[in-house]
Amino acid sequence: MALAKIETCFSPSLLHLYDIKKSIVVIIDVFRATSTIAAALHNGAKEIVPIDSVEKCIELGKHTPNSITAGERDGKVAPGLQYGNSPLEYDINFVKDKTLLLTTTNGTRLLHMCMEADEIITGSFLNLKAVCDYIIAQGKDVLLACASWKDRYNLEDSLFAGAVYESVKEHFEMNCDSTRAASHLYKLAEKDLYGFIQDSSHFLRLSKFGLQYDMEYCCKLNHHNVLVKYIDEKLLSI
Amino acid sequence: MALAKIETCFSPSLLHLYDIKKSIVVIIDVFRATSTIAAALHNGAKEIVPIDSVEKCIELGKHTPNSITAGERDGKVAPGLQYGNSPLEYDINFVKDKTLLLTTTNGTRLLHMCMEADEIITGSFLNLKAVCDYIIAQGKDVLLACASWKDRYNLEDSLFAGAVYESVKEHFEMNCDSTRAASHLYKLAEKDLYGFIQDSSHFLRLSKFGLQYDMEYCCKLNHHNVLVKYIDEKLLSI
Repeated sequence: MALAKIETCFSPSLLHLYDIKKSIVVIIDVFRATSTIAAALHNGAKEIVPIDSVEKCIELGKHTPNSITAGERDGKVAPGLQYGNSPLEYDINFVKDKTLLLTTTNGTRLLHMCMEADEIITGSFLNLKAVCDYIIAQGKDVLLACASWKDRYNLEDSLFAGAVYESVKEHFEMNCDSTRAASHLYKLAEKDLYGFIQDSSHFLRLSKFGLQYDMEYCCKLNHHNVLVKYIDEKLLSI
Repeated sequence: MALAKIETCFSPSLLHLYDIKKSIVVIIDVFRATSTIAAALHNGAKEIVPIDSVEKCIELGKHTPNSITAGERDGKVAPGLQYGNSPLEYDINFVKDKTLLLTTTNGTRLLHMCMEADEIITGSFLNLKAVCDYIIAQGKDVLLACASWKDRYNLEDSLFAGAVYESVKEHFEMNCDSTRAASHLYKLAEKDLYGFIQDSSHFLRLSKFGLQYDMEYCCKLNHHNVLVKYIDEKLLSI
């Protein structure tokens, strides 16, 4: 039997080049949406609703029992929301059984662009193994979709794509230069991921807000090893 | 005085993210348009007219004295044109003083998308040093613009962007993850560029047409070290 195909898309602006109808799309927004999502669900959140605007998030918060409105714009808590986009904000005592209504600059936007995919899951270093185990088990074509930063290529999302590819490559067919580049980069970075990522645009941007520890946390492999799937407009741990 | 800025754009589909009005744009299409352009001009071609369609190329050929129509679609000589897109086709005895009317899948298309740039030059490994010397001397902002393959990221163009950056980095300010990735990749590849590039989509595609030697030739650093500038709808050696 032919192997399923794996490809990497470096930016939402390149998404139209890929046919995702029969594919599992892995949404990747390492700093920080998909890391926060893994942390919150692993810590017992009931569900996460990704929302594409701050206004809708605030409105939905008024009508959703036991919910938290959260999100960021340009790396900071968006005005009108209760919480931000840090995986450290959502510990078990705070988030357990709650509904997280989440809007972010890049990750939730990309997710909404991928609605025609066969399946959508989210990935970050915090749940790398869960992502890899799942896509191997499903045996479908996979698109590793980087949220990037306002459509510009970023290092940390492609490093995660490379990490996935390095873990699953025996199970997939690959002829995609984005995946090759991501794989080369991850092999350069893997011994000191947090050190490597410090020379990146996103690190420099977020460290101005004092968020270094957030980013160090986002580099912890399998620290919240939960599979996150988008089902009926919600992200759930399955 | 503040240093000029250098950035890398991995695909024509990302070009809208960059403000190029005050910049030198370096058009990069290593396999093979910008390599062919460097070879033909270095070998004495009078000028090269980049054209966006095969039909226009054929028509212009009828009215241009001492001209050659050339180009490819999907890696092969386009029907109706006289020559292809191989740097090896244009030796000095053949091309001297001629006008080359050239249309290619990716490179000439990108060039026509960059008309609002302050200056346009073309780059390939064959004329790496000329590109680097020129952008250092000009002191303007630079966008290294990869032609890619039908808008998909490709390795060879980003490797060239990395090679440029590694040569000029002391003269520019850089905060661009595409440039960082290109630089990491070039440092991995530089000891055996042709070997490295053999694991790439474009190499696999063109080697099916027996074009390995073309691609090996395109990896020869500074073999046709000419500066190529787009002036009045023509590419000229200056």
